[in-house]
Formats: sequence, structure tokens, C-alpha cells
Amino acid sequence: MAVRKAIYLGTFVHCKTLQELEICPNSAIGVDEMGVIAFVDRHVKDPSSIKSRPGWEDAETVAASESSFFFPGFIDTHIHASQYPNAGIFGNSTLLDWLNTYTFPLEGSFTSLSKASRIYNRVVSRTLSHGTTTATYHATIHVPATNLLADICKRKGQRAFVGRVCMDRMSPDYYRDENPETAVRDSRACIEHVRSIDPKFELITPVITPRFAPSCSEASLRGLGELHKETGVPCQTHISENKSEVALVKELFPKAKSYTHVYDDCGLLTSKMILAHAVYLSEEERALIKTRDAKISHCPASNTALTSGAARIRDLLDRGITVGLGTDVSGGYSPSILEEARQAMLVSRHVAMQDGDGAKLSTEEVLYLATRGGARVVGLEDKIGGFEVGMDWDAQMVRLGTVSGDGQGGLDTGLVELFGGEDWNECVAKWLYTGDDRNTVAVWVKGRLVHQLATYRP
Amino acid sequence: MAVRKAIYLGTFVHCKTLQELEICPNSAIGVDEMGVIAFVDRHVKDPSSIKSRPGWEDAETVAASESSFFFPGFIDTHIHASQYPNAGIFGNSTLLDWLNTYTFPLEGSFTSLSKASRIYNRVVSRTLSHGTTTATYHATIHVPATNLLADICKRKGQRAFVGRVCMDRMSPDYYRDENPETAVRDSRACIEHVRSIDPKFELITPVITPRFAPSCSEASLRGLGELHKETGVPCQTHISENKSEVALVKELFPKAKSYTHVYDDCGLLTSKMILAHAVYLSEEERALIKTRDAKISHCPASNTALTSGAARIRDLLDRGITVGLGTDVSGGYSPSILEEARQAMLVSRHVAMQDGDGAKLSTEEVLYLATRGGARVVGLEDKIGGFEVGMDWDAQMVRLGTVSGDGQGGLDTGLVELFGGEDWNECVAKWLYTGDDRNTVAVWVKGRLVHQLATYRP
Repeated sequence: MAVRKAIYLGTFVHCKTLQELEICPNSAIGVDEMGVIAFVDRHVKDPSSIKSRPGWEDAETVAASESSFFFPGFIDTHIHASQYPNAGIFGNSTLLDWLNTYTFPLEGSFTSLSKASRIYNRVVSRTLSHGTTTATYHATIHVPATNLLADICKRKGQRAFVGRVCMDRMSPDYYRDENPETAVRDSRACIEHVRSIDPKFELITPVITPRFAPSCSEASLRGLGELHKETGVPCQTHISENKSEVALVKELFPKAKSYTHVYDDCGLLTSKMILAHAVYLSEEERALIKTRDAKISHCPASNTALTSGAARIRDLLDRGITVGLGTDVSGGYSPSILEEARQAMLVSRHVAMQDGDGAKLSTEEVLYLATRGGARVVGLEDKIGGFEVGMDWDAQMVRLGTVSGDGQGGLDTGLVELFGGEDWNECVAKWLYTGDDRNTVAVWVKGRLVHQLATYRP
Repeated sequence: MAVRKAIYLGTFVHCKTLQELEICPNSAIGVDEMGVIAFVDRHVKDPSSIKSRPGWEDAETVAASESSFFFPGFIDTHIHASQYPNAGIFGNSTLLDWLNTYTFPLEGSFTSLSKASRIYNRVVSRTLSHGTTTATYHATIHVPATNLLADICKRKGQRAFVGRVCMDRMSPDYYRDENPETAVRDSRACIEHVRSIDPKFELITPVITPRFAPSCSEASLRGLGELHKETGVPCQTHISENKSEVALVKELFPKAKSYTHVYDDCGLLTSKMILAHAVYLSEEERALIKTRDAKISHCPASNTALTSGAARIRDLLDRGITVGLGTDVSGGYSPSILEEARQAMLVSRHVAMQDGDGAKLSTEEVLYLATRGGARVVGLEDKIGGFEVGMDWDAQMVRLGTVSGDGQGGLDTGLVELFGGEDWNECVAKWLYTGDDRNTVAVWVKGRLVHQLATYRP
């Protein structure tokens, strides 16, 4: 789908490395009809000169105001689209009782397509409004509803990985796969549907999704492993989120060397596997994940809310394991990756209280996880997560609030408050700690405008 | 200042006990000209009958819509008004270096009254917009700027405790009290100013504010203790926030039995003392605090952000110590008590990962701390924190978002999403986990409307 060529003008911020933000004021980025970054000009002295660049005379121009900047779109590497109506509802429960009390009854109701349509439309609109340009979704076991989620993502223009959930044991009668064969058959059906609406998986990609080892028989895991090998379609699941769950896996898979080996033994632990949580991995498991180059989705808000534990992210990063962020709605209470990045910082400080200061994640590091890290988790590091020539324009315009000279008025533009004199690094820190969707005034995926704040006038 | 009599109609939610929310649908509360609750009617069958109550025929009526409810105003028991421009800025620092790098330079600049005016106007407007009807402020050492903060609170109608900060050692030359005598003299001047604008301390109360033991000579602490005894004015300070600080106090006060004893020895540890943080208190110190009936302001967001530690709130509550919540801006990054209540739940879950499930605070408990608990901390439990006859109408109207049948539109009313079918407890949980100032559509203090969301039409 072609878009109108556009030139974006203003300040651009993205992550250069895990430790370093690159801040480019007075710059210009040209995006071609395919939504691909065609040029990046630094230190533009005369913005009008940009318009006269040969071939770009008719391009639209989008300028960020003085207190605004462009930032790469966020990548949510783990979100249960179907659980969104339960966001904020879990009381004092922990993983296994939470699943039975809150989650399975809701997911089980996705036999209703009108209900699925309402919820999935909502989730996609909301995540876009939070600047999530790419989301890796768990849907439910239902083929029609899962296919509908893929359709909605395509229509609204969100880059998405859409997974039909597989679960053929330890699940309620009203909500489970009949047997390993139907689990694989139905997963295949969802893959084929995505192929029919997006043959090259340019915007939407199917993802093979065993819920987690306790919900899957060994036969179904093996079947999905074979499907993965046959199709090359990526995979996602949960791992080592909660101590009771880890004990349960040990009991259910007595022959496996570890939880991680359960997936490895079935051909699922490859470089295209996204493992959510990874709170209680042994030394050996972390080494195996590194060897296989499997990816980790860190979900700090959920891990805290469900009292699951605190993942040791510094250790994973030090080993060179690829990590991104996941909101894990509705174990996580918020569909915002900005909130998740904030929680990643806060949780790392609780880890630091135990393990020492080295565990702390910085502003730069959590923003890296939210963009470049997530891009590597979903295997799109050459396309998204930063602003380089040849990458897709998946971006958000972030507008910060400025306080008037007398301190009055202007409460409506959001919670970030610039008093003047802040440098760009401080502006970004304020956004990360105090910002929300009110600061994300416009969002683009592959050059297409997919969200605009109602009160924002370009 | 008289207000127009008013009848509030709809659902009222407040905390009955630490563990229990009381939810009263179809009810009415009448508020008299003094802003005091004159009657509470449960289960009103015919709202028009309320209007014909003798003496209330001319009262204004304010009705909450179906997805709205009235909730007591929040009480912030510890906030540094002067530090607000730094909210979100602290990098990876911890308490003592954070003070020198970020805090003292900002506070020291409050010699400028125009700067103070801008910042204090902003803080008071913002905290009101977050539903904070009572705030216990630390200002700076400057008498004129501190008096201005009191004036602004009075003008904007926020119930406030305003403290001039005392610090006569271990502080930069450009920002310290000259000696113990001037520290006491200047504190007295601020008390007298409040007396001149609000003789009975009906809305504004001065509060004696030694910064914390490391910043105060023993002579100044003793002087402030005498001032406290003489005037009966309440006190506030910090205690045991960070391990290095605790070690420093031990070094600076070699004769004191503990950090808590430093304050007790100087006559400051009374039932009118608010102690912020209380992360690393010994058994003996907790017992002493209980004996003296001193109060604790729990500041979880700050304690996490500055990697100070995780306060053991369950233990304090089990001992019968009075606890409220404090945003501790700008150690805390947000001036919202709703966010602080959320952080109190999350931090209690990190404590539970260490100490066991008993440490977890529930939705009900953190909302209690945010209202009734805070009221007891500031000694106003008979006036604010709940909806009983004879109490002041310090309240907020909370409006939750509702998702349309097709899931489209309506992104602008805030982040709380009701899909229908949620019971009131689930609605409150959603507000607590996903709500923000967009849900606080109107705020009253002593019956006076002090904030209204720009997009809200009653």
C-alpha cells in the first residue's frame, strides 16, 4: 500500500546503543511511497531547502514543534489481546489461580465474534494510541476470532504478530484444544489466513503459540515444533514466570532436563522463539537460550502485579541474550510500553536492592528494550526500532507540555511539565517517568498515519 | 468562606475499614454552607424527593453519571512543592548524591519570588487536578517563598500543611540556615504568617520542618522541639530512608540510641510528627514510634526510584502505627496519590517476594492509606477521609470510561475501560490500576469546587 512521500522535520531521538541515546535536533527524514526512510539529513540550516530536493518537491512536510520530537514506535513483544477487558482486575491472586479465576472464562468467551470484534478493535486502537507500532499478540484458541484480530490489525495498520493459542491439557473443558492434531490443524488454519490477507507477511505475521508447557501435551508441543520447522513461522510462549509453575513443569515433564529443555526437546527453542517472563531460569537454561539465540520478552508490570518475581535483566543482557519488553496484558495492567519501560526501571531497582547497583537499568537502556531490543526479539532489527536509511518509518511524534510563565493553565496537554532549561536528555527522562498517551500525538507505521490525538493539530 | 448548599447524588465509595470499601449506590449527601456533610441518605428511590427536603429546596444538585462515583479527596502526607520541576529527573542517583546534584541547587533558587510563584501555582493546580484535597508540603528555607505557598494554597482552596525547611549544617553555603537561632526564628515567622491569613488554621496549617537529622544541628533540633511544644504546631521530617543516611546519622549523633531517638531526644517525636519513609527502622525504633504515636508517610515511588529500599508497611500496620501515603516529589516522580497508591501495591508485592504473601497490600488497603490513613497522619480523621455526617466535603468525582458496543471511538476520556458487567469493586480496581487525572472530573474542598476537568460538563 503506497503512501504519500513525506519529509519529517525537527528533533529525532532514537537509541544508538543499549547505553546511548542519539538526539538529532534540526534534522530531516524523508520517507518514500513505500514507507521507507530514503534520506536522513542532520543539522538542516534551512528547512525550505529540504523541499527543493530533487524528487521531493511534492512531498508532504510534517514538522515537530520545539517541545516535540520523533521517536521510534514502541514494540510490545508480549500482549494477550483477548485479556484486555480484565486489565487491572486480579486482586491478590497469583499466576495459576489467576488463570482459572479471571483469564480462562474471558478467553473462552471468544466463540462470540461480535465480542471478539469489540475487544480486538479496542486493543489495537489503544495500543496504537500508546505508540505501539508493532505488537506480538496472543489471541485465544478460536480460529475465527484469531483471524479477525489479524484482519483488524491489517485494517488499522498496526504491524502485528498474531498467535492462535494452543492448549490441550490442564485447561477447562470449555476452553481447550481437543487433541494435539486439532491444535496443530487450527494453528495451521490461522497461518493460512494471514497468508491470504498478507502473502509476504509484510505487516501481519502469524506466530505459533503454545500457551505454556503446563497447558500443552508433549505431543502437541512436538506437533507445533514440526509446524515451526515446516513453515518457518515464528513462535512464542511463556517460560519460568512463577515458582509454582516451574514446579508443575518439573512434575509434568519428568524426563526433561529443565523447563527450557521442554521447548528445546520439541524443536521450539530456536532463534525465532519469543519466551515471555524468564524470571526463574537456571544457569544452564540461560546458557541454552543463548546458544539457541531464543529471545526474551521482559514483562515487569505483570511480574510485579501477580507477585511472580523479578527477572534478572542485567544478567541476560550481559550474556548477550536478546531482550524486549512486553505489557503482558492483563497480567500486566497497562497496554502502554512507556509504562512498561518505567516499570522495567523500577523493577530493576528492586533487583538492585538485592543484587547491587549493577542491576539498575537506565532511561537509555529501557528505551532501547522498548524499541531496538523489541525489534531484535521479533526479528525485524533491520526494519524497525531506529531511524536509519532503508528502515521503515514506524514512528511516533512525542509532544511534551510546557509550563507558562505564571504557572497557570495548560493542564490538558498531559502530565509532562517542562519549565524551560531542561536539556534533551532530561526531557526524555521526564517523558519516560511522567508521560502517557497524551504525549503521543501522532503515530505512523510503514509511513502510514495510524493514530492521531484528537486534540493535536499538526 | 460560605459555599452554596449542595446535594450530591449517585454512587459514593469510601473506606469503611482498612480492609473494606463501602459502596453506596443511589445515595445522596447534603453539604451545608460551611462545606460540612449535613445528611447522608442511602438507597434513594426518588432523587426528586431529596430536593424537597425542608431547608434544601434551593440547594444545587450535582449528580454523578452511571459510570461515575464520588470518592474522598486524596491526602498527600509528604510532598516537596519546591522540587516539582525536577519530577522525573534523577538518573541513577541515590539519596545523598541526588540531594547535592539535583535538589539543593533547585531549592536554593527560591530566593526568587517570581520563580516560586510559577512553581507553587503549578504544583497546587496539578495536585488538585489529581484529586489531592490535602497536601503536606515541604517548601524551602526561604520565608517569603514559603509564605507565598501558603497564600497560593489558600487562594486555590487546597487544604495544606506548609512547612518552611530548616537545615543548618551539611548543606551548601548558598542554601542553609545561618544558625539554630535563625532556623527557629524563620520557622516562627512562617507560623505567624499562616496565623495572619488563617487564624484558626481552618484550611492552612503551618508545620515545623527540620529537613532531616543530617541537615540539622542538635541545637536546631532542640530549638524546633521547643517551638513545637510552645505552639502546638505539627512537625514533619524524614527518617531512615536510605542505608548511607542511617549510617551518617549514627556518626553525627553518636550519643543517640537510634535515628528515631535523635528526634525523640529533642522533643520532636510526638503524635503530631509525620515521619517520611521509615524504610530501615529497628524493632526498638518501631516500638518507640508506636509509643509516641508518631505518624508515618509511606513514599513507595520515591523509595523505588532512588533505590532507597522497600518499607515494611504490613508490619507497621500490624503494630497499629498510623500510615499514610506521600508522593515525595521529586524523589517520587509523580504528584498523583492514585499513582502512589498503585506503587504502594506494587512495592508491597516486591516485599512479599521476600517476606511472604502476608506483606501484600490490597486495593482496599492502599485506598485506605490514601484517604483515612492520610487523615489520621495529619490529625484530621474527624474531618476528612470519608463520607460521614459532620465531616467536611473534601471529595472528588471519578468518571470511568466506557467502551462502545463496537469498540471504536472514545479514546479521550482516559485509560480506564469498562466493557460492562464489571461490579463496583472491579470498577474501583480498574481505576486504581489504570486511572489518572482524566478520571478525576471535579474536586471539592470544604464544599468549594477547586478543580474541574476542562472537558467535563456536569
